[in-house]
Amino acid sequence: MDQLFLHTLRDVFYAENQIIKALPKMIEKASDSMLKQGFQIHLEETRGQIRRLEQVFKIIGAEDQGLKCPAINGIIEEAEEVSGEITNKAVLDAALIAAAQTVEHYEIARYGTLIAWANQLGRRDCASLLQEILDEEKATNIKLTSMAETYVNRKAA
Amino acid sequence: MDQLFLHTLRDVFYAENQIIKALPKMIEKASDSMLKQGFQIHLEETRGQIRRLEQVFKIIGAEDQGLKCPAINGIIEEAEEVSGEITNKAVLDAALIAAAQTVEHYEIARYGTLIAWANQLGRRDCASLLQEILDEEKATNIKLTSMAETYVNRKAA
Repeated sequence: MDQLFLHTLRDVFYAENQIIKALPKMIEKASDSMLKQGFQIHLEETRGQIRRLEQVFKIIGAEDQGLKCPAINGIIEEAEEVSGEITNKAVLDAALIAAAQTVEHYEIARYGTLIAWANQLGRRDCASLLQEILDEEKATNIKLTSMAETYVNRKAA
Repeated sequence: MDQLFLHTLRDVFYAENQIIKALPKMIEKASDSMLKQGFQIHLEETRGQIRRLEQVFKIIGAEDQGLKCPAINGIIEEAEEVSGEITNKAVLDAALIAAAQTVEHYEIARYGTLIAWANQLGRRDCASLLQEILDEEKATNIKLTSMAETYVNRKAA
């Protein structure tokens, strides 16, 4: 179980580092200024999340090393594939939000699992750091939903 | 926007069909009888979801054809990779639940987006079918969390 926890922790560490690389491209592609700003804020947040993950690695005495995670690579590949096909700026914004929400949901699933496992393994200290990240991911997802439903989807349609 | 909706619909159609193929392997790998049964029920549910998606294709007058979706392939690849490394049965059950929850969260993200787009495009009929699927995915995710937190994770630890 300790090994499974570490494996999954390395997965999300890799995933967050891939997201750091993907977000600048999404910022560049976004047209709406609020959306651009939202992605920018999330990029800063992600850097903070990586620092928290480094703390978790330290606590459990493991090297902070990512593990290639086909899931996040597939999610990012799909996002780039779809957004590459769209020429209309408003539709592209809607697609970018949808892609970002897929990433957020992936992370929400993984951190939810990691927190449950950390608690089960008696690592409340790790669980609490991971909970801080999960709360940020959930808040980002809510912000994205709100942006999509209040005006981005309307402009795209 | 209609094209983006159709593209994403084809993505989830492909994804559900991949899940139909992946679930029997998960049923086989699971040791806990409740978990096995849960996956079996979800397999039946997924067949019903595919039929609802076929109805959505019919409503919008498009062919019910999937589109290769790197995201779900990545998620399934990761699940198989991790579960292949685990020899302890109780830990494997915990890993299988975690993998299934990643799939559920992916679907929750996609259906949430599709419903918002269908409503925006004035397709309440499609939105209502997609909402039925989303409700099932959310219920499955809650059941998996409950199973993990009540005894599967404890046995694994």
